[in-house]
Amino acid sequence: MRKVTFGGASSLDNYFARKDHAVDWLMWSDEAASMMTDYWKTIDTVLMGRKTYEVGLKISKSKSNPYAGIKSYVFSRTLQPGKEAGVEIVQKDAAAFVRKLKGQEGKDICVMGGGDFAKTLFEAKLIDEIGFNIHPVLLGSGIPVFYEMKHQIDLELLSCKAFKNGCVAVTYRVKQ
Amino acid sequence: MRKVTFGGASSLDNYFARKDHAVDWLMWSDEAASMMTDYWKTIDTVLMGRKTYEVGLKISKSKSNPYAGIKSYVFSRTLQPGKEAGVEIVQKDAAAFVRKLKGQEGKDICVMGGGDFAKTLFEAKLIDEIGFNIHPVLLGSGIPVFYEMKHQIDLELLSCKAFKNGCVAVTYRVKQ
Repeated sequence: MRKVTFGGASSLDNYFARKDHAVDWLMWSDEAASMMTDYWKTIDTVLMGRKTYEVGLKISKSKSNPYAGIKSYVFSRTLQPGKEAGVEIVQKDAAAFVRKLKGQEGKDICVMGGGDFAKTLFEAKLIDEIGFNIHPVLLGSGIPVFYEMKHQIDLELLSCKAFKNGCVAVTYRVKQ
Repeated sequence: MRKVTFGGASSLDNYFARKDHAVDWLMWSDEAASMMTDYWKTIDTVLMGRKTYEVGLKISKSKSNPYAGIKSYVFSRTLQPGKEAGVEIVQKDAAAFVRKLKGQEGKDICVMGGGDFAKTLFEAKLIDEIGFNIHPVLLGSGIPVFYEMKHQIDLELLSCKAFKNGCVAVTYRVKQ
């Protein structure tokens, strides 16, 4: 079964980005770069909601797939379903779709972006691991990493590393 | 100048307690106990809002001061101002009051409880350090550690330690 992971760089007050989606506060470092390089080797598929997709297109200046070479699925009720250049727009029930995807052959699967889409997958018990590079900043407001959920989710700490620049990288296994 | 610190045990999704104030999910450990013992030696004063005070009274079964032997200030617009057995109810402007307190002789000062009261002090630039024992759990909902704030606050990581039970203890200096 392929692993589904959710995470990214976050602020200590639980935001992925400012309200206008800006990530100008991100601190780059060799340590973060090396961690990301290792991580990208483990996945071949990215899942995201429409909002994350649109921000990704803008940042990457790509016309269709913000993550070149990676199979991307965008879950949306408003975009036209279809496939184009490595991107598939999915209008169907996300949980059922992802459950099927996990059973297929392939590398692991990454859930990108704000916690709105991840919440659906958490509640359907489809996320196996989470990981954050917690930045030493309180943004004050922004796009939340975690939205309110119906149930408590217990975690097991897998790794914790403080970077030289004050970021703290943590990974957890989701206890199902 | 006395240091003002804010923090406590928190969930990874940024809650101090469940919506009904329950903290049944807290994981106790020798490592956390030892950290708390060291911390309590550095303070002689506790600040809190009314809600935290009322929960503290309930948990401690005390009639007036949930933190015996510690000078406590409760900031409230509804409780009757006054002093009793180590507790002072303050109706005045919290920021001005705390600013004056910081200039007085004494050990450091601890801000207790939910982020609603802390937000006022953060926005008045009165908090010097923050510290959390991040538990390996997503509560899903609860009393937030951080409320929305008007401004970004930059932090400097002072320490980071992963406990054997999967908690991650972090402390930060607030950059003013």
